[in-house]
Amino acid sequence: MKNIAAIIGGGVIGGGWAARFLLMGWDVRVFDPDPEAERKIGEVLDNARRSLPGLSDTALPTEGNLRFCETLEDAVISATWVQESVPERLELKQKVYRQIQDHEGGSVIIGSSTSGFKPTELADGAKHPEAILVAHPFNPVYLLPLVELVPHPGTEPGFVDDAKEILTSLGMHPLLVRKEIDAHVADRFLEAVWREALWLVKDGIATTEEIDDAIRYGFGLRWAQMGLFETYRIAGGEAGMAHFIEQFGPALKWPWTKLMDVPDLTDDLVNTIASQSDRQSGTRSIRQLERIRDNNLVAMMRALKAQNWGAGALLNDWDTARNDTSDAVMDYAEIEDIGAPIETVNRAVPLDWTDYNGHMNEAKYLQVFGDATDRFMWIVGCDADYIATGGSYFTAETHIRHLDEIHAGTRIRVETICLNGQGKKMHVFHQLWAGERLCATGEHILIHVSLETRRPSDPSDKIARRLGTIEAAHHALPTPDGVGRFVGAPR
Amino acid sequence: MKNIAAIIGGGVIGGGWAARFLLMGWDVRVFDPDPEAERKIGEVLDNARRSLPGLSDTALPTEGNLRFCETLEDAVISATWVQESVPERLELKQKVYRQIQDHEGGSVIIGSSTSGFKPTELADGAKHPEAILVAHPFNPVYLLPLVELVPHPGTEPGFVDDAKEILTSLGMHPLLVRKEIDAHVADRFLEAVWREALWLVKDGIATTEEIDDAIRYGFGLRWAQMGLFETYRIAGGEAGMAHFIEQFGPALKWPWTKLMDVPDLTDDLVNTIASQSDRQSGTRSIRQLERIRDNNLVAMMRALKAQNWGAGALLNDWDTARNDTSDAVMDYAEIEDIGAPIETVNRAVPLDWTDYNGHMNEAKYLQVFGDATDRFMWIVGCDADYIATGGSYFTAETHIRHLDEIHAGTRIRVETICLNGQGKKMHVFHQLWAGERLCATGEHILIHVSLETRRPSDPSDKIARRLGTIEAAHHALPTPDGVGRFVGAPR
Repeated sequence: MKNIAAIIGGGVIGGGWAARFLLMGWDVRVFDPDPEAERKIGEVLDNARRSLPGLSDTALPTEGNLRFCETLEDAVISATWVQESVPERLELKQKVYRQIQDHEGGSVIIGSSTSGFKPTELADGAKHPEAILVAHPFNPVYLLPLVELVPHPGTEPGFVDDAKEILTSLGMHPLLVRKEIDAHVADRFLEAVWREALWLVKDGIATTEEIDDAIRYGFGLRWAQMGLFETYRIAGGEAGMAHFIEQFGPALKWPWTKLMDVPDLTDDLVNTIASQSDRQSGTRSIRQLERIRDNNLVAMMRALKAQNWGAGALLNDWDTARNDTSDAVMDYAEIEDIGAPIETVNRAVPLDWTDYNGHMNEAKYLQVFGDATDRFMWIVGCDADYIATGGSYFTAETHIRHLDEIHAGTRIRVETICLNGQGKKMHVFHQLWAGERLCATGEHILIHVSLETRRPSDPSDKIARRLGTIEAAHHALPTPDGVGRFVGAPR
Repeated sequence: MKNIAAIIGGGVIGGGWAARFLLMGWDVRVFDPDPEAERKIGEVLDNARRSLPGLSDTALPTEGNLRFCETLEDAVISATWVQESVPERLELKQKVYRQIQDHEGGSVIIGSSTSGFKPTELADGAKHPEAILVAHPFNPVYLLPLVELVPHPGTEPGFVDDAKEILTSLGMHPLLVRKEIDAHVADRFLEAVWREALWLVKDGIATTEEIDDAIRYGFGLRWAQMGLFETYRIAGGEAGMAHFIEQFGPALKWPWTKLMDVPDLTDDLVNTIASQSDRQSGTRSIRQLERIRDNNLVAMMRALKAQNWGAGALLNDWDTARNDTSDAVMDYAEIEDIGAPIETVNRAVPLDWTDYNGHMNEAKYLQVFGDATDRFMWIVGCDADYIATGGSYFTAETHIRHLDEIHAGTRIRVETICLNGQGKKMHVFHQLWAGERLCATGEHILIHVSLETRRPSDPSDKIARRLGTIEAAHHALPTPDGVGRFVGAPR
């Protein structure tokens, strides 16, 4: 029989829970008296369906069944998990728990999405307080893995174990909070930063946008992969965490925030932090941690670059600005010798292009050749403006000879020859060089298409003319080794 | 003539500046009396050389020349930019500026890396205060784009403009801080969070590792791409930012941090924030922002997945846990019908695999086929344990027919046939299916190599035996359309 999740209270958070359970194969029953609940949850579900399944490298289970219930009883009967996400009013939450447990008898875990209340407060007055705990997620619930799991002293340990197992099976990371406090752990940081941000705006130091930039172009990137303490461990260097705290310590006494109540840096506290940090990160040297950090930063910034957002948009702007002043061929008018192969890529191999064999992954050869083809298309006139008018080239066929290994950091170049540029067809041959080493060749046939019909169509006159000119000039070049080969053909 | 940067004070920050200037083509002159400075900067430079050049999609300029100077004068004479990164002692910094300006006469921008001092304090007593400003970077300086640029009221505006232009040309984002305050903007947040973290450790609520997890599995990922206000704008939904603040407002009065001095949420402050947020993000609807956020999160989490770190390591653990209970072929012993094609990929297409044509990018076809080959290698015995013993397969040749478009979210499968598994050779043919649509074929020849010599070598007996068995069984299959074709061959 399928697992059933009862979602009490829809909205963004309840909807996020519903989406995660559903896409992980659970059946979901929603109870929310809001007449808009079905629409709201549907919107969250749309977002989840487009983003969550591809996050994993294997297929998710078949999606479960979603049902909106008329009564609370209908939703919670037979449930394996009840998740409460009603508004942040303590009496309301307590009343909902009493009603839930009247129906199901206290045999089911009730997780609360509360961001502020302690589980002891929530369970106060419940018939079965042992089944109640905080399971506080982060928006968007269908993507972010963190769930703060906070039991109260009376929560049945078996329920806590079950909760950890279930949340893990949903692809989440249950963080068991050791002692219940208001706002658990993460929201204390959010609150501290929010208060500081309010002061900065109020005092006219920075605008909301400048504050966001100060976060996402700097420490936000660090925190997304290592958090606070591991980042500072690296900053402290080989001298260690205790040394770092001693150095950073005096700032605690300086007027660096509007919020001045600070703990004393006793030897006890310094030792606690240093030894926890050793346990957390001590199996790796600072040098190793630095490289891991840099690998992560490069990978995330390049991921954002592909999205043209945040730190990645900065990188794109910067590439563009440098293109304008570079020697490489960026435009048809810049081609000096029309009869020579055209340089279409000139770059270093980024850290995130290597694989378990320690060299550039095979798929990145095609990425380089794809970039070369994009540049060649651009040069003949199939640029962003042209594509916006509804025409583009789609690759129909690819042949790659992987001739030599390439490592991260290596400077690579691609030289491109046009073998055929007649009609709808574009047949190009790329040579990938690292210095004097020919590392790969790529032979590609592209077809011009209408982006509306997705069917073959003729390119613009300008493109046809330029392609024809380049093809005619390139015909005089000797045929490069590898052209027209089939896979496995003798050399 | 080349631009020259004078780096006064080495260490991690000075070294990071030196690396960024050098790799952007500037000549760099370092002055630091520390006898270890050359070694320390060399280490930072090693890290920068391996990570920065590949971050960009075009080649960086030729690296500049690095020279360590015996005297401050030698370093700053002829400099275009002086960057001071000496220890955080005000008198020391002031003394250094006096000496610098004695040598160069006040014609050069002096940027200070100070994280705490205000520029007015720094410039106090200087002969040419107009040339002094704060240029506060973030570690690692060679990767993170943020620089807080803080002039004092007496800083020459021309110097501020030049500083913005120079920092931008280095691939950085100069954030001009509107009013000077202690610790500028970003470090106020770092300090607030640091104080809160100290309390949490001291009170035994969470360990350093749990705190790091609370950050990097949750809001850290949000902040890396959108920061604080744009994230909350989304959380507020269509009702807008003012509505969000009203809802979130009461929490300011709750005991959610140890640091309780809070600004009053006057109408003025609410309006200021709401209208700033409109200017920042108002050109996009909440729905658009949600999708951008999800695209970014998926892209960053998948980037971390490839690094097997943070939220990405969680995803890998979770994939592995699900593999153990899945029906797909994960091991040789699980093959039910040795004569049938083997299912080697079964997944959804992630959001970050699409390109400007709105479909799965051509390079991702090879990524899918590479993943299929990896799985096939795994099945015949070339798994992580085997690779650790020094043998692996390298792809020598690839032929792809791109037969149909695939969109993000589509469930895809790959079926793999072994055409040849004799000796050092592995010749496989993949069919990529989306439901009943054949979207691509991939034909690949791999060669078994020794990872030590990087030369061809024989695989283990187990691999040879399994490959031989599968090849013999697959010979009975009809030859699929597309095998042995060359690029451009008639169908």
